Amino acid sequence: MVSVEEQLALIKRGADELIVEEELVEKLKAGKRLRVKAGFDPTAPDLHLGHTVLINKLKQFQDLGHDVLFLIGDFTGMIGDPTGKSATRPPLTAEQVMENAQTYKEQVFKILDPEKTTVMFNSEWMSKMSAGDMIRLAGQYTVARMLERDDFSKRFKGEQSIAIHEFLYPLVQGYDSVAMCADVELGGTDQKFNLLMGRTLQKSAGQPPQNIVTMPLLEGLDGVQKMSKSLHNYVGVNDAPGQMYTKLLSMPDALIWRYFELLSFKDMTEVSELKASVDAGRNPQEVKDIFAREIIERFHGAEAAASAHKGVGNQVALGEIPENLEEVVVDADSQEELPISAVLRLAGLVKNGAAAKDVLGRGAVYVDGKPVEATLKLRVSGRFVVQAGKKKIARVVIK
Amino acid sequence: MVSVEEQLALIKRGADELIVEEELVEKLKAGKRLRVKAGFDPTAPDLHLGHTVLINKLKQFQDLGHDVLFLIGDFTGMIGDPTGKSATRPPLTAEQVMENAQTYKEQVFKILDPEKTTVMFNSEWMSKMSAGDMIRLAGQYTVARMLERDDFSKRFKGEQSIAIHEFLYPLVQGYDSVAMCADVELGGTDQKFNLLMGRTLQKSAGQPPQNIVTMPLLEGLDGVQKMSKSLHNYVGVNDAPGQMYTKLLSMPDALIWRYFELLSFKDMTEVSELKASVDAGRNPQEVKDIFAREIIERFHGAEAAASAHKGVGNQVALGEIPENLEEVVVDADSQEELPISAVLRLAGLVKNGAAAKDVLGRGAVYVDGKPVEATLKLRVSGRFVVQAGKKKIARVVIK
Repeated sequence: MVSVEEQLALIKRGADELIVEEELVEKLKAGKRLRVKAGFDPTAPDLHLGHTVLINKLKQFQDLGHDVLFLIGDFTGMIGDPTGKSATRPPLTAEQVMENAQTYKEQVFKILDPEKTTVMFNSEWMSKMSAGDMIRLAGQYTVARMLERDDFSKRFKGEQSIAIHEFLYPLVQGYDSVAMCADVELGGTDQKFNLLMGRTLQKSAGQPPQNIVTMPLLEGLDGVQKMSKSLHNYVGVNDAPGQMYTKLLSMPDALIWRYFELLSFKDMTEVSELKASVDAGRNPQEVKDIFAREIIERFHGAEAAASAHKGVGNQVALGEIPENLEEVVVDADSQEELPISAVLRLAGLVKNGAAAKDVLGRGAVYVDGKPVEATLKLRVSGRFVVQAGKKKIARVVIK
Repeated sequence: MVSVEEQLALIKRGADELIVEEELVEKLKAGKRLRVKAGFDPTAPDLHLGHTVLINKLKQFQDLGHDVLFLIGDFTGMIGDPTGKSATRPPLTAEQVMENAQTYKEQVFKILDPEKTTVMFNSEWMSKMSAGDMIRLAGQYTVARMLERDDFSKRFKGEQSIAIHEFLYPLVQGYDSVAMCADVELGGTDQKFNLLMGRTLQKSAGQPPQNIVTMPLLEGLDGVQKMSKSLHNYVGVNDAPGQMYTKLLSMPDALIWRYFELLSFKDMTEVSELKASVDAGRNPQEVKDIFAREIIERFHGAEAAASAHKGVGNQVALGEIPENLEEVVVDADSQEELPISAVLRLAGLVKNGAAAKDVLGRGAVYVDGKPVEATLKLRVSGRFVVQAGKKKIARVVIK
């Protein structure tokens, strides 16, 4: 048995806030098997490490013997946006939801134990709810309090329109906690308002209110902005092993400790020892290597983790770019931008399209010292240091 | 066939606003049989003449050959107030709704032709509506526009709480118009916002928007405040013939023309002639007598109308109170107030409780010149001129 203190320490590891700690301690002291809820969008999931911060926290609860309830919020997804303003978010069909759920499961079950995880869909109870029930639910909360939510408040003051159904979605999320009898709900810090709604509605329903653990948004590989696909600073859980390795080894040295706290399952004492060794002069790249292998093993297995470094080693780091680098001029042929694969070919860094695809797939292409995606396009005109695989490097001038 | 101009004149008689006149004219020109909607609360109805202003307008549409849809809003009544703040308005059962509907019908079918009236209940479509449908409906309108409604705006600015379900009720009322395919909706001037919601939602649903006729609130017998039970200035449709007669003959002279316009079915040219006769010196009481007989005939039949005046005649009017009126002292026996029936007995104006009940039932009791209800209580200490039936009158001092 893990002591209450140890459980609490693990639950709080990396967390932004725990609401209300005393309540949770009481539940843990009572030896209660907690029902731990986390909700996910039913839109096409393609997770990156940022998303796994929350899933890792679920995993920790699971390892402590609690029940993980993985909720897919398909109900609202199947309604779509009734304002009709966002043409890009049409309602999902039940088939699409099931397909997305399957993709979700494949990804998260690399972290969570499928045997100990209950996957739920809120359509199960929400599709049985009548308009009258919805009205009763809406009677539990006031307009003024709803307008206190950060984004609503900003939009209201900025005279940007808020459709009334947007006031109903937080109530639905809160009601999910009632229907699920959740003891704890996890979410990002930006979800705090909605998470608190669960407490409010559970109290009205005569349930003990859930405790809340908010997790911070993970910084991307740049160490500054939050990890996001559109910012090209992410590691996808489906990235190839070599790609993960090169991306993770490229992060700023200071970021590794944050990543250890939020993404590693290593004990924090072990992490402290690693930090002490770096402080004493050890090369931080060695510690990143340890971290990268843990992540690669999680998503691709032990074998891939053992060999991921082989495909990428010996790269010229940004600080080591030769001073008198060969300059290659590439003719953009009047186009406004060029795909990175074309640039590699035209600059003679790879022999052909297949080789470009290969080196990009391995995540072994760097532009100005940063690993890039295969979809990257470079603008005309520009000057870039482009590096492909081990030792191919050039200063490319696109005209 | 009544011409479009004549129809329009009748529809606009006494109305506060017609939205949008041009649209309605088009519908009338097309010879369309209009579906004319009016909604009523399902709470226990005990109608007074103020309520019949709207029903009279329905009657006029009916006489013009249009279809009257008498909607009982039982759906919201069966939900009750989910905030739980108004303990006085618990949800109604289906049985209570049916009972109230029956009482409604008995009263309104004294005005409307039952054969040409469709009584509808909005639970018919609203109870089939799912929470998802409700969310979609809520997506049709914005928070900012809802807060423009007068009462919401005042409460929001005054920091009085508005529960979110209150935003849903106007949407339900508007949706009723969609479900009913209403061409016209009638309502009080205070209902304008909700009536316009019907237009908005019908447009979204691809229906031609309903036209709106708002009717003013009827002044009570005092000619100043709106007719209301709590202000004791009303004529109930279930009042006894004699009670109606005395009440109506007590109204200020100037008020009679307003009552003719909103409550009488006499042609406006006939009303103008009556007014001309009064202007030329005719006693206004004679015109009130004509009006009172029309109203009494409507609710009690021709015979009652013919004899109603007999039970009350020869009363001493306020202006005719004898100067040296007998003063009677009544001992309140330490109570703070006395029921009017007890006052009548104690002051010797009636012989016993049964006689008090009888004279009160006939509406033949006046206090300080005004007809009073049987439920009236007089405060201790006070001085009142109390009159019971024909010639019993006294200055009563309650101590």
